[in-house]
Amino acid sequence: MSTTVTRLTRSKEATALTLRLTTGSLARQAARANEYTNSTSGVAPTYLQANLLVLPSRYADDFRNLCARNPVPCPLIAESATPGDFSRLVSHLPSVDSGKLAGSLDLRTDCPRYNVYKDSQLIKAGVPDVASEWTPDHVAFLVGCSQSFESALERAGLLIRHSVQDRTVPMYRSNIPLNAAGVFSGSTYTVSMRPFPLKDIERVRSISRAYHATHGEPVAWGWDAVARLGIADIDQVQWGQPPLTEDGQPLGTVFGDEDNVPVFWGCGVSTQEAVMKAPLEGTVLAHFPGCMLVMDCGEDDVL
Amino acid sequence: MSTTVTRLTRSKEATALTLRLTTGSLARQAARANEYTNSTSGVAPTYLQANLLVLPSRYADDFRNLCARNPVPCPLIAESATPGDFSRLVSHLPSVDSGKLAGSLDLRTDCPRYNVYKDSQLIKAGVPDVASEWTPDHVAFLVGCSQSFESALERAGLLIRHSVQDRTVPMYRSNIPLNAAGVFSGSTYTVSMRPFPLKDIERVRSISRAYHATHGEPVAWGWDAVARLGIADIDQVQWGQPPLTEDGQPLGTVFGDEDNVPVFWGCGVSTQEAVMKAPLEGTVLAHFPGCMLVMDCGEDDVL
Repeated sequence: MSTTVTRLTRSKEATALTLRLTTGSLARQAARANEYTNSTSGVAPTYLQANLLVLPSRYADDFRNLCARNPVPCPLIAESATPGDFSRLVSHLPSVDSGKLAGSLDLRTDCPRYNVYKDSQLIKAGVPDVASEWTPDHVAFLVGCSQSFESALERAGLLIRHSVQDRTVPMYRSNIPLNAAGVFSGSTYTVSMRPFPLKDIERVRSISRAYHATHGEPVAWGWDAVARLGIADIDQVQWGQPPLTEDGQPLGTVFGDEDNVPVFWGCGVSTQEAVMKAPLEGTVLAHFPGCMLVMDCGEDDVL
Repeated sequence: MSTTVTRLTRSKEATALTLRLTTGSLARQAARANEYTNSTSGVAPTYLQANLLVLPSRYADDFRNLCARNPVPCPLIAESATPGDFSRLVSHLPSVDSGKLAGSLDLRTDCPRYNVYKDSQLIKAGVPDVASEWTPDHVAFLVGCSQSFESALERAGLLIRHSVQDRTVPMYRSNIPLNAAGVFSGSTYTVSMRPFPLKDIERVRSISRAYHATHGEPVAWGWDAVARLGIADIDQVQWGQPPLTEDGQPLGTVFGDEDNVPVFWGCGVSTQEAVMKAPLEGTVLAHFPGCMLVMDCGEDDVL
């Protein structure tokens, strides 16, 4: 796996472009034209963002079951209308009609970057599109993304550290087992992390709780949760960028500090981890972590 | 907690009565009259069985969210029509109308035995009814029970060891975290266990998979899963009765044997474990593990 693209850092130009991508439609167009190939954190604020996973159709039933059995890391929000269809979706959200999810959609090009897996091995990381890999047998699934409740936290005055610092959210493998579903067994949750002051954690839990379709409330919090989740080093992320203190030091340098308490949420990258732990045959496509599909509906439409 | 009632062993008379309780309605009537105060394993075969948890109304929203976030151990199938109502239910099962769940119902008496918790502490174990504890503020929840897919496994020729031996299913605390939901945080899955030959495990997984509302497919299997789940000793159960080999020896005496591989499912007793780990105030009522509420609908009505 190429590590050169795993640490997305936005240039000034990219940040300027981010500010112009004010809707889901504009974000998808910019990704389709490969004008925008960066993290979608901060892109189209208040629009719903989604994880993408595209599977050979014979694994579709097991994947639906994996999501149903693990709704916290893998909240299923939509899937291809039919196998092979990359432009029409069927909604799994009771509050959002299928037609309202994303008009003018091409799942092969509309994420800023993609990952490609062959026989459960990552073979390409961070490529700008996957049109050449797509087949009529591929079924796409969209899974909620926690970047969707960041606006709600910000509206309540709770700063999202990685967003303020224009970085990608830190993501880790954890030791929490995913409930097995057919071919998908033996995998664990991936988690995203945002630090908050200890005094704010109950408020953070309370605000994110309502966002069931985008991971809901945290799964763990506190400095002791780092070891409990099996995370060896808070400064060594598996995806995204390492977390920093307010003044730019590695977060681990203030271990135990009550103003920088790690808070962990279920993360949709769990779907890619499940692919890597399963013995799948064939080609699987996915967004590149942090570079999400931005939808036409709002994050509050899924409450 | 009284240990005298935690190891339910059926007398010959109880076994004879079990065979006469052929419907959910008969099972509830016998429990209501305290004629039957034993495990419901083998009672009213093919009828749906349920875990009961009754909470002060202020905890109801958090409990619904706990179930939504943990559908494998805590599949919510119904709740009280209104707070305080012990005879009418609202169904959460898309395939079963509320009126078809259980006619002539009294949740205060219709489980063979009950547990009573005060301020999150177990204060009474295995009492025959809880009418004197019930208040107009209590909200009852029913959660699926894995005794409901045992018939399906038996129809496929897969022997349920504890059922053949007329014992209660072995249940354990595991180290799998329950996804936190409001006041319910810091708890873990409880699991039920049935041994099967290694060669049958994929068939066991496949058959139980369809029973989403009653825990679905196993969460772990294999002798190595015992340590992985944090179970110190397979012969030391937390609820139910210890597992035995076919010839009645403790299962641990054949550790590693491919004819006796432990298979673990999510278990509805997780709801009582969550109560004990939460700082709840007031009185919580529950069935006594193994002594379930038997419904009027069939276990295949929830497929």
